[in-house]
Amino acid sequence: MSTAARYPHDRFRNTQVSDDSFWGRWRTVAREVTLPVQLKMLRDTGRYDAFNLKPIDYYKTPYTVWPVPDWLFWESDVAKWVEGTCYFLHTHPNKELRGHVDYLVDLIEAAQQKDGYLNIHFVVNEPDKRWSNLRDLHELYNGGHLIEAALAHHQLTGSEQFLNVMLRFVHYCASVFGPAEQGKKPGYPGHPEIELALLRLYDRTGDQTSYDLARFFINERGSDGGKYYVDEQAARGEHPQLAPAMMPKKGSYWYMQAHALIKDQKTIEGHSVRAGYLLTAVADLVEMQQKGKGGEETQDLLVALYRLWNNMVTEKMYITGGTGSIKQWEGFSDIGYFLPQATDEGGCYAETCSAISVFMVAERMLALKLDGTVADVAERALYNASVTAGMSADGHSFTYVNQLASSQADFCERHSWFQCACCPPNVLRSLGIIGGFLWSPVGQSGDIAIHQYFDGEIEHGDTKVKITTKYPWNGKVVIDVTGSKTVHVRIPGWASEKYTVSPQPATKLADGYIALSQGSTTLSLPLEPRLVASHPYTGQDTLTLLYGPLVYCLEDVDNAWESNHFKDLCLSADLDLSSLKMEHRDKEGVTFIHAPTAGYHLQQLQVVTAAPPSQGSNGHAKSAQGSVVSLGMNDVASKRSYEELEGQGKDLIFVPYYYRANRRKEGVQMRTSLRRKV
Amino acid sequence: MSTAARYPHDRFRNTQVSDDSFWGRWRTVAREVTLPVQLKMLRDTGRYDAFNLKPIDYYKTPYTVWPVPDWLFWESDVAKWVEGTCYFLHTHPNKELRGHVDYLVDLIEAAQQKDGYLNIHFVVNEPDKRWSNLRDLHELYNGGHLIEAALAHHQLTGSEQFLNVMLRFVHYCASVFGPAEQGKKPGYPGHPEIELALLRLYDRTGDQTSYDLARFFINERGSDGGKYYVDEQAARGEHPQLAPAMMPKKGSYWYMQAHALIKDQKTIEGHSVRAGYLLTAVADLVEMQQKGKGGEETQDLLVALYRLWNNMVTEKMYITGGTGSIKQWEGFSDIGYFLPQATDEGGCYAETCSAISVFMVAERMLALKLDGTVADVAERALYNASVTAGMSADGHSFTYVNQLASSQADFCERHSWFQCACCPPNVLRSLGIIGGFLWSPVGQSGDIAIHQYFDGEIEHGDTKVKITTKYPWNGKVVIDVTGSKTVHVRIPGWASEKYTVSPQPATKLADGYIALSQGSTTLSLPLEPRLVASHPYTGQDTLTLLYGPLVYCLEDVDNAWESNHFKDLCLSADLDLSSLKMEHRDKEGVTFIHAPTAGYHLQQLQVVTAAPPSQGSNGHAKSAQGSVVSLGMNDVASKRSYEELEGQGKDLIFVPYYYRANRRKEGVQMRTSLRRKV
Repeated sequence: MSTAARYPHDRFRNTQVSDDSFWGRWRTVAREVTLPVQLKMLRDTGRYDAFNLKPIDYYKTPYTVWPVPDWLFWESDVAKWVEGTCYFLHTHPNKELRGHVDYLVDLIEAAQQKDGYLNIHFVVNEPDKRWSNLRDLHELYNGGHLIEAALAHHQLTGSEQFLNVMLRFVHYCASVFGPAEQGKKPGYPGHPEIELALLRLYDRTGDQTSYDLARFFINERGSDGGKYYVDEQAARGEHPQLAPAMMPKKGSYWYMQAHALIKDQKTIEGHSVRAGYLLTAVADLVEMQQKGKGGEETQDLLVALYRLWNNMVTEKMYITGGTGSIKQWEGFSDIGYFLPQATDEGGCYAETCSAISVFMVAERMLALKLDGTVADVAERALYNASVTAGMSADGHSFTYVNQLASSQADFCERHSWFQCACCPPNVLRSLGIIGGFLWSPVGQSGDIAIHQYFDGEIEHGDTKVKITTKYPWNGKVVIDVTGSKTVHVRIPGWASEKYTVSPQPATKLADGYIALSQGSTTLSLPLEPRLVASHPYTGQDTLTLLYGPLVYCLEDVDNAWESNHFKDLCLSADLDLSSLKMEHRDKEGVTFIHAPTAGYHLQQLQVVTAAPPSQGSNGHAKSAQGSVVSLGMNDVASKRSYEELEGQGKDLIFVPYYYRANRRKEGVQMRTSLRRKV
Repeated sequence: MSTAARYPHDRFRNTQVSDDSFWGRWRTVAREVTLPVQLKMLRDTGRYDAFNLKPIDYYKTPYTVWPVPDWLFWESDVAKWVEGTCYFLHTHPNKELRGHVDYLVDLIEAAQQKDGYLNIHFVVNEPDKRWSNLRDLHELYNGGHLIEAALAHHQLTGSEQFLNVMLRFVHYCASVFGPAEQGKKPGYPGHPEIELALLRLYDRTGDQTSYDLARFFINERGSDGGKYYVDEQAARGEHPQLAPAMMPKKGSYWYMQAHALIKDQKTIEGHSVRAGYLLTAVADLVEMQQKGKGGEETQDLLVALYRLWNNMVTEKMYITGGTGSIKQWEGFSDIGYFLPQATDEGGCYAETCSAISVFMVAERMLALKLDGTVADVAERALYNASVTAGMSADGHSFTYVNQLASSQADFCERHSWFQCACCPPNVLRSLGIIGGFLWSPVGQSGDIAIHQYFDGEIEHGDTKVKITTKYPWNGKVVIDVTGSKTVHVRIPGWASEKYTVSPQPATKLADGYIALSQGSTTLSLPLEPRLVASHPYTGQDTLTLLYGPLVYCLEDVDNAWESNHFKDLCLSADLDLSSLKMEHRDKEGVTFIHAPTAGYHLQQLQVVTAAPPSQGSNGHAKSAQGSVVSLGMNDVASKRSYEELEGQGKDLIFVPYYYRANRRKEGVQMRTSLRRKV
């Protein structure tokens, strides 16, 4: 059965995150500001009431993105808010919020159909059409988030009310979906989510049906290259060439990772949140199977998991830890190393939810095996592309897309809500349990592993760990261990050459972790700015400023002279890093980096254009060096010309990428990776 | 009425291209090899007979690219072959070929319906469906190519047989299409072509209906953002979300430049051949209107023409003169400066037909106004991306797509034919009249302008010009003018600083042309290799070797040690160009460039990957410099490492890009623009 520390969703209760710390400040804002802000959003938009199953005018609106009704995921928005609220209520009881939770749970229970089916859109608008489009219409996705909310509700209240609703739903689904030989529909959800939820439900309750259904969905997915979806479309009487807007062409089942069985997928493809939630479930299934459930597929899925993770991390991930380059399908390019920073460079998406899914997958992989490289990736996504990037420091506004640079088409901006509102409540609920992502138990050994530094305490069995640190603003971490077990502590990759530990641990660094025993240990991580180059195969040649786990960027708020989205701003690899000055602003709780001598401005090229008759032609113009710059076609002189910015009052001021668009939330010009001066 | 030199299709007969010259050799191969090769292709594939209107089994094949039947453009393939053959028959009469032409013309005449309609697919397979899908189904496109064939036939034979067939077709079309107020269909072709053909037909015959119909199609195009196509689709009873495979999403009427009236189009978009043929017609219409037809729209169209040309040339054209980055819609990226070289970099298309359309548009623009920058572009496309690139030197094989670099997904290769076979006969007919593209009359003045150098003679009025040159292999051009008129000669942009003319002309360089009078003049162009950088906004940092008008590349045929598509091969901007050695191989008629000290190899990065349990993790690996290369995410050391290739037997040998994949036609690794050594 469940162990109290198996999931972040459980062990966060054994984690105390100090209020006056990096993560503590985020949690406080989330609880005090974001939670009520999102509640108001739910109420104002109609989501709050929607489980009353009343038809409303809004349901007559034409769909923005066919074939998906604009209100199709309302269940999940409500569920995630309930889930997040339950998490925060553990440490901060609040009768009003608890009242909302209770009210919504009652409404959800009442909305459940006699046979166990639970859904707003289909019950209200298309009662004959349930299950007719698993590919696009999110019934199972919504169910998965409702399961996660029910688990949080049960955990907080001890009541099985909501849990029972979802168990009825699951048993009903299990009567509908399964092997064709059993007379069932051999389908699987277009948007993975329910799989990971079912496994947690099994873990909590021991309900074998939940386990079996998750396993069925995972193993059936992509069977015959997505034939289920082909047949389903034909059964709807649709033209075979019809494809939803987000699929680049008909039959692109890689969009939802259904182009092949998971075990046969060579590269990570498609919608990145779908991929992330799917791999989270796969990793969890593998762990359960390795720890007793057994299964023929375990080894194949394990190998596929690591293959897809590696492909994602080495070829399809931004330096911020964000994933997804392509807006049309909100996901991975089908080409490795296709990582433009902005809309006008070929696209950049990096959805907040997908960076959250990155550390969700990492967490399950770390349960399989301690590997500092995996925790390094989680650190990068955690600090730069997900919860901190996706929410403003004041808790009021959010980003869905997290581009690395702005453009005239897409300035850097935050928004109070989105028509597809998955990201804000995802940030909320993740911050609710963030402590649970920072460490994990090492199997059943009683040992623990600390993956991410934070100021606070962990309790596990009779082990207590107190951590004192101002990370990521300071590299000193004091770890006090009480108890007889071993505490493994990750040393980040970027620190692995220069860190010191005092006293020295008995054993060496293993797989990126040092092993500490009872007592007090001081870890010193070399917090120094560093420049990281783009991978050559991205075709770009850029340099990015990093500082510890943080990726930095330039924002026009601090560099008001910029007017071209920093496209012409260059850094030299010869930059003397000791000339950079770190300035920590206590009020904002953010370190800024001043680089007074670092900037160069690429000089504008003269471009010749043809002029219609009756206007003079400018014929051939000369470039600054005297060689002719002919008409377009990239006939550009082989040496670039630059202007030094030093002494012009254009000292560069860098800010953490996650903190962009906080001082000003609209129309911001920003760039993360800067052109290399050549 | 027509002037005998108004179009290339006319004045090629006044142009003698020496057999033993660059263009002469191409014409000879085209006539002796390509023409019969293509005839055999037409016969073997069923195109030759198809105008007999018999139903064949092939017509039951499922469409490769819905909704376009695979045989939909057979009319145009036959028409272009007939057209090209007629051009070559002027100087090289051949009874057998003439017999084929006569036979096909009779077949076409017999295929014409009583009302004037002429089409194979619809008459044979869907007789009730004519004109039901102008957007996708090419009836007017095919008509346009048949008109061009008829004009060539008439010009060769003096017979009006074919011309009359097409005039009947045109008059029938004019009864169907026109202003809605006249009870006609206010439609316009999905694939522009007929517009330019109708204008030439008008020029040849004085048929006002032809002019009016072309003008209607041009001015109506894009009306209401393409509403005609929306309505047409609804009339077919199709789901509004249905979109053909080549359109990235429904409603993408920019694919066929119908998203707005042409005069309101700000940037060049969509399928590049459609765009090129459309602009050719627009330029011709403008010239006719300026020279007497008049029209309210002239100035607007003129301004739009130049705006779209400039946008194309400055932001959406490859260094080879090729256009089109995106395979899905065979055309321009919607983003400026999006010019990857290969499939694995984001795509490269550069269709042979689209580079041909570039010099077609340029030719019409040069009739409006002499502008050396426009002729520079034509030169680049002519020599590098169209007729020479698209055909092998032996005349047997072709390219459709002309990527700048190969990849594992798409090696550099030539093919004997294509299922959509537009490019090979387009190359053939263009070479048939190539002399006509090299110069043009300056309005009615009697003066002429020579845009491109070639060895041969021009006759225009009482002006004769004899040109002696081995260009592009030699920079010396001797021009002998007889007659009282002025001969303007373009000086290429790349030569404009160092060229010499002897004797000095009386007037200065004007708009890129010098003005010569009667007598002999020797022009010396500085033929030296030069390096051209990528435009910074492409995001790339590359250097390309150019030599006169030619763009050079590296091919594994000459550099057999390469195994990674030259991705890691770097050039330095400090390369001493005097160390390059030109080697002209007479047999092949091509100059190779040896660069023994030029190459650097970017060292491979060590990449760390996570390993599943029960395999050792490789933890943190060290890069060559000692700094840690962490797991993916482009955590790459800021300084690159290189290996010099000098002295390793890896002397670089460059070959003209157009000549790639001639020695070996399959599986070739090749790259044009090389990474800059930083």
